[in-house]
Amino acid sequence: MKKIHAFQTVDKIIFGNHSLENLNEHLFAFGEIKHVLIATLPNFEKNLDIVTKQLDELQVTYDVITDIQPEPTVYHLNELYSRIESTSYDLMIGMGGGSILDAVKILSVLKTNDEPLENLIGTELIKNKGVPMVLIPTTSGTGSEVTPNSIVTFPEQELKIGIVSRHFLADLVVLDPMLTVSVPPRITAATGMDAFTHSFESYISNKANPISNMYAMESMKLITQSIVQSYEQGDNIEARSKMLLGATYGGMALTSAGTAAVHALAYPLGGKFKVSHGEANSMLLPHVTRVNLDVIEDKMAYIAKEIGLVEQGSSLSVKETAELLIKQIESWTKQLNIPQNIAEFGVKYEDIQPLALAASKVTRLLNNNPKELSVEDVENIYRKLLD
Amino acid sequence: MKKIHAFQTVDKIIFGNHSLENLNEHLFAFGEIKHVLIATLPNFEKNLDIVTKQLDELQVTYDVITDIQPEPTVYHLNELYSRIESTSYDLMIGMGGGSILDAVKILSVLKTNDEPLENLIGTELIKNKGVPMVLIPTTSGTGSEVTPNSIVTFPEQELKIGIVSRHFLADLVVLDPMLTVSVPPRITAATGMDAFTHSFESYISNKANPISNMYAMESMKLITQSIVQSYEQGDNIEARSKMLLGATYGGMALTSAGTAAVHALAYPLGGKFKVSHGEANSMLLPHVTRVNLDVIEDKMAYIAKEIGLVEQGSSLSVKETAELLIKQIESWTKQLNIPQNIAEFGVKYEDIQPLALAASKVTRLLNNNPKELSVEDVENIYRKLLD
Repeated sequence: MKKIHAFQTVDKIIFGNHSLENLNEHLFAFGEIKHVLIATLPNFEKNLDIVTKQLDELQVTYDVITDIQPEPTVYHLNELYSRIESTSYDLMIGMGGGSILDAVKILSVLKTNDEPLENLIGTELIKNKGVPMVLIPTTSGTGSEVTPNSIVTFPEQELKIGIVSRHFLADLVVLDPMLTVSVPPRITAATGMDAFTHSFESYISNKANPISNMYAMESMKLITQSIVQSYEQGDNIEARSKMLLGATYGGMALTSAGTAAVHALAYPLGGKFKVSHGEANSMLLPHVTRVNLDVIEDKMAYIAKEIGLVEQGSSLSVKETAELLIKQIESWTKQLNIPQNIAEFGVKYEDIQPLALAASKVTRLLNNNPKELSVEDVENIYRKLLD
Repeated sequence: MKKIHAFQTVDKIIFGNHSLENLNEHLFAFGEIKHVLIATLPNFEKNLDIVTKQLDELQVTYDVITDIQPEPTVYHLNELYSRIESTSYDLMIGMGGGSILDAVKILSVLKTNDEPLENLIGTELIKNKGVPMVLIPTTSGTGSEVTPNSIVTFPEQELKIGIVSRHFLADLVVLDPMLTVSVPPRITAATGMDAFTHSFESYISNKANPISNMYAMESMKLITQSIVQSYEQGDNIEARSKMLLGATYGGMALTSAGTAAVHALAYPLGGKFKVSHGEANSMLLPHVTRVNLDVIEDKMAYIAKEIGLVEQGSSLSVKETAELLIKQIESWTKQLNIPQNIAEFGVKYEDIQPLALAASKVTRLLNNNPKELSVEDVENIYRKLLD
């Protein structure tokens, strides 16, 4: 079989502690900038000031949006766009978690494509490049800063759909670990496990390839070294720095190799029960992996070795070595206090079947899964989170 | 000290055996294409046909250039441009070694910037993005397909100068190992060692960083596994495939971390004595490394371990482990029949001092070297290649 792989990423990444303070040095690539849109978190004044001071120095004006809702709906995105429709921007800066970065991606292309958002839902349906974008993640999780994806919620259909476009790849990404130190433990845990899930699923994906594997493995190494520390000591800069790189590498891996069943099962939990993307993935990861285990033992054993779970001179079998990884994942779930029960999000036994049917429709991701999962398999996985 | 790093790369890479046959599937990103410039090697009809057949299918017309000279001079580049100046192209495809890819980068931006080439020499002096480019390497060496660099020869000054521009980063790169199987052994050896040099120098560069190190290390692993096999069995596809990825990773590493003294000393050999870039680097690598050795022992020992030179349970010291790497480099030099004497290129003893003075001016690269080298140090290194 002819196996051809693709790798796509953003134009430029700058990274390092306080790299946000050097934003100005990299703006020359955007030509003359007069007016900028900044979308960021509320209560993020200190970091917003770092950006606006630099824009002031360049005598660039800006508008600021701080009320983007988490996991934005199609209506919310249209409302945001209506607010900026009549203003001309030379650059858009998104500084926040995945939802803010995803929203900026949408606003950027709505500005340059004479189409309503509803017409752009799908893969590569967006014709024109958007307004140039700088994406600055403030959580170590989604990897959205380097993916061509934007996730939109459709509340009536209780669905979350991923829009994929090369025009969602940023012109500049700033990875400054200092922005992540104030992320509270629960979000650190969920987004961190989300990042690990991206890399793990990319590595075991049917579309895994040498470049995605390199990023995925390096990501898993970095996250293993830092996830518990980041959770327990939020101001540990070295741990935060490793988590941020690890999460971005996860985004690069999944852009090339795709994610698989964990993500497919997470979407309906998000669409129907408002479980955040990170928590849904974190809860599902150990259970889906147990089901996949027999067909990915070799890969799991290799990961276990590479991320340092195996003692030197170990005489464990491949199966036993693979078990070390699944135990590590389960142990993180406990150490990081990841929710274990979807009942606390309102899921009831009678919801299992509709959830499983919805997940089974996410074939774009299920096709990447190393094992075919029946609707019953999926039901059984959800049920584990109710018992 | 605040350490901020940057990583830049091309928009999209596709790779895999026969991936060139899938070129068409990726051209949608360039919008409507009517007329294309293809620059490639002479006697490369078979692969040129793979491209032109696909363009024919899309009813796209094309002009073909097959006479780009190796290590092109500023005059040659101006002459090439004068030939295409009056024709409009929607896309340029470069399929060849570093010289052809570098030339296409120049032609692409000359088309869209109303400036003579002479005004663009330097770093980031090119204002407008060029004609969209597809770069397709046919050697595993320069990594030019993923760098923002183009090397131009100035014959009067006996100099080679690197032009650096973000607009030299391709829109699409095709890595098809099948195109490299016909590369003759001498070029396989020189370009392969050139690629190793890129990764090695990036790894020990003062600007080394987590992303460049990841690419550099993976590149050194791949090249270690495949360089001798590619040289001895040119049609070993697996080896060719590893070399091609390894060389491209080398280009990605050097774009972020820069190269160092080996490259600084190689340029004058190319400018004055027409030593090809690959052979100059290959000859210099072991000698420059011996001089750097005492300050990079730790890094070299780590490389030796990671690329598999150290036996399990080894009790060698760091210094001894580092020596394993330098011995491996020297052993490749012999196995690959890398020229050992610059006398065969016409260099005489009295040329050593002017060469060393010229090399000492390449401060852009010498500043990346982990050790400061005096003019005498440089003279001593050149002298090793005359003894």
